[in-house]
Amino acid sequence: MTEELAKKAADFPILDQIVNDEPLVYLDNAATTQKPKAVLDVLERYYQEDNANVHRGVHTLAERSTAKYEAAREKVRAFIGAKTTKEVLFTRGTTTGLNWVGRFAEEVLQPGDEVLISIMEHHSNVIPWQQACQKTGAKLVYAYLKDGALDLDDLYSKLSPKTKFVSLAHVSNVLGALTPIKAIAERAHAVGAYMVVDGAQSVPHMPVDVRDLDCDFLAFSGHKMLAPTGIGVLYGKEEILERMSPVEFGGEMIDFVYEDSATWKELPWKFEAGTPNIAGAIGLGAAIDYLEAIGMERVYEHERELMRYTLPKLQAISGLTVYGPKDADKHVGVIAFNLDGLHPHDVATALDYEGVAVRAGHHCAQPLINHLGLNSAVRASFYLYNSKEDCDKLIEAIIKTKEFFNGTL
Amino acid sequence: MTEELAKKAADFPILDQIVNDEPLVYLDNAATTQKPKAVLDVLERYYQEDNANVHRGVHTLAERSTAKYEAAREKVRAFIGAKTTKEVLFTRGTTTGLNWVGRFAEEVLQPGDEVLISIMEHHSNVIPWQQACQKTGAKLVYAYLKDGALDLDDLYSKLSPKTKFVSLAHVSNVLGALTPIKAIAERAHAVGAYMVVDGAQSVPHMPVDVRDLDCDFLAFSGHKMLAPTGIGVLYGKEEILERMSPVEFGGEMIDFVYEDSATWKELPWKFEAGTPNIAGAIGLGAAIDYLEAIGMERVYEHERELMRYTLPKLQAISGLTVYGPKDADKHVGVIAFNLDGLHPHDVATALDYEGVAVRAGHHCAQPLINHLGLNSAVRASFYLYNSKEDCDKLIEAIIKTKEFFNGTL
Repeated sequence: MTEELAKKAADFPILDQIVNDEPLVYLDNAATTQKPKAVLDVLERYYQEDNANVHRGVHTLAERSTAKYEAAREKVRAFIGAKTTKEVLFTRGTTTGLNWVGRFAEEVLQPGDEVLISIMEHHSNVIPWQQACQKTGAKLVYAYLKDGALDLDDLYSKLSPKTKFVSLAHVSNVLGALTPIKAIAERAHAVGAYMVVDGAQSVPHMPVDVRDLDCDFLAFSGHKMLAPTGIGVLYGKEEILERMSPVEFGGEMIDFVYEDSATWKELPWKFEAGTPNIAGAIGLGAAIDYLEAIGMERVYEHERELMRYTLPKLQAISGLTVYGPKDADKHVGVIAFNLDGLHPHDVATALDYEGVAVRAGHHCAQPLINHLGLNSAVRASFYLYNSKEDCDKLIEAIIKTKEFFNGTL
Repeated sequence: MTEELAKKAADFPILDQIVNDEPLVYLDNAATTQKPKAVLDVLERYYQEDNANVHRGVHTLAERSTAKYEAAREKVRAFIGAKTTKEVLFTRGTTTGLNWVGRFAEEVLQPGDEVLISIMEHHSNVIPWQQACQKTGAKLVYAYLKDGALDLDDLYSKLSPKTKFVSLAHVSNVLGALTPIKAIAERAHAVGAYMVVDGAQSVPHMPVDVRDLDCDFLAFSGHKMLAPTGIGVLYGKEEILERMSPVEFGGEMIDFVYEDSATWKELPWKFEAGTPNIAGAIGLGAAIDYLEAIGMERVYEHERELMRYTLPKLQAISGLTVYGPKDADKHVGVIAFNLDGLHPHDVATALDYEGVAVRAGHHCAQPLINHLGLNSAVRASFYLYNSKEDCDKLIEAIIKTKEFFNGTL
């Protein structure tokens, strides 16, 4: 099945190029993914046939544009299993979504309350909580790691009636570790806390159903799941969104505006001030069509096969340390590592000479990188268009890099 | 010159279509503009050749992507005459930009302070100020109209040392009236107030130079100036942005993140949390290239010719009321009107049957519409690809609509 799915690479024109005299092997998918021709065609067609502002016009183009924009919202709803499109808010991306939840927390938190996150959160799931806690006198509490993944015992020991929000990455963007949100949500709700999920690295890679998880919020980004840049989604339970104040104010989201006050439109538009990223939302709808035609179970299984194939080969390289779970089945599409004595940036640069695109740095997760005692790490991240051949090229390039630097040192 | 410029319509594939058996005449440009092939080609090329996340990668695609993204920022800088790219923040659009300034106001305003706006502001330049005033105890003060444009005497009479912000649309999105920002900025600065400009309807249509205007902030949207949806700009003077807190928190905008605190990157990245709308920014750069190849003086002059041609013809239709200035030279690309006894939505629908796309409603300016004693109005808005032939079709369709309804009433 893996190689069958990897044939999809032909749908992605960008992958068919030479970089530094080598065929490109794109393994930076946790940062952003490539776009299939089907998504680019939908974008092009929107701009060439229908482009108009949404909701406010009665003319033909405005009606077509509005219908396509709202159809994209329905596609998202079905994709994540939300109850109604009222629960699907279009944002700029995961960061905006998590910031909106952080603003809601500022309305809710009291001095002495606690927010529980983990040490492996992306900065976008750290700093909004630091801000909310600083402004309200609440306390930010961290759960730590065990065997390269979230230590559930530590997490549960820190969960108490003081906890008002538990906010966790579904999949770590560095360790690739999958966190059991459904079980945690149950425990969080039992103490009266909201369960917030950073789905940036899970929604693109596996089936995610918000009603099955029973999370209160789920944020994710279009560009990490084949869609254009500048579009994302914040899912929130309807009854919570009803109580939550809008974060941006302007056109589209209002009902009546008087000189001194204003009232808001119903959900989901209450949260969507100004002209949205219309083409971006429609492009996200097309990306979902593409993913659903494959099936998210198959996408997930394909990446698991790549993990099972690659991780042991990496672990077998002497002087190479892999971070995160030792078990390939616990890695969702992401492997971070370092080579003894080599700076991660030098490794990434050397791999780039071989045509292999990986990332090096703190991966917007400095608390984790510090906790691991590192300054940075190399990260290879995979998607549905990657093949075992790509994995082989990664391994070969790492070995070549190691030999090259060992020779010169 | 006008007809020469209107030949540019050939660059816009969407305009060459039949709507309700009539050739499309797109006159809803104040809502959003169409995109030239040149911009769509740049978007397509970006996604097919360079797409990668910016700033954080050392691999070839990430470097190309970053270079193009930052080159777009430099194009914006030059286009509006900013001193440095530190002053150019990419946003989702005008609304986001004005909301950020509103958040800054919440840090600055004290009880008893005043914010001075006009009755013809777009909701995005009203509600953020209502919010800031409600949260700080400052007072929101309105200046009213004279001869269909801002009453400068009224504005100046309300300007005092209590005024901390003056925030005005450069061009009204309903009346089309141009407000003399440069003169007002001088008076605002004399009392120690910040001058904030909603440039959504000016930057796309005329030369705008922030140093000449000496405004402190200028917000505008890409999609209203030939660029993709989901991208905009907030210009702010460097010394003010240095003092201003970031509004969104996450990756990209940080320097160091510890468990309990974080420090911010330097300008402009301090404000750009998370993955930006990379393709949108690059598309905006391409739109600026297109506009600069024509020259903004020519764009402005072209639209003035269309106004001089169209306004008298509209004024000559009995039972038709034009809002805003009587003088065509004082309209920048926008004409709002109503037909006696007809609902604006019916008029817009009837014009759509003739292929003419206009908008009807409150145009996100309810305080103005209320002030004019209306519930809504029809708005025709123009851009560089519109011709005198388009204006003729508008006039013909209005007359036909009037005769049709008069016959049936």
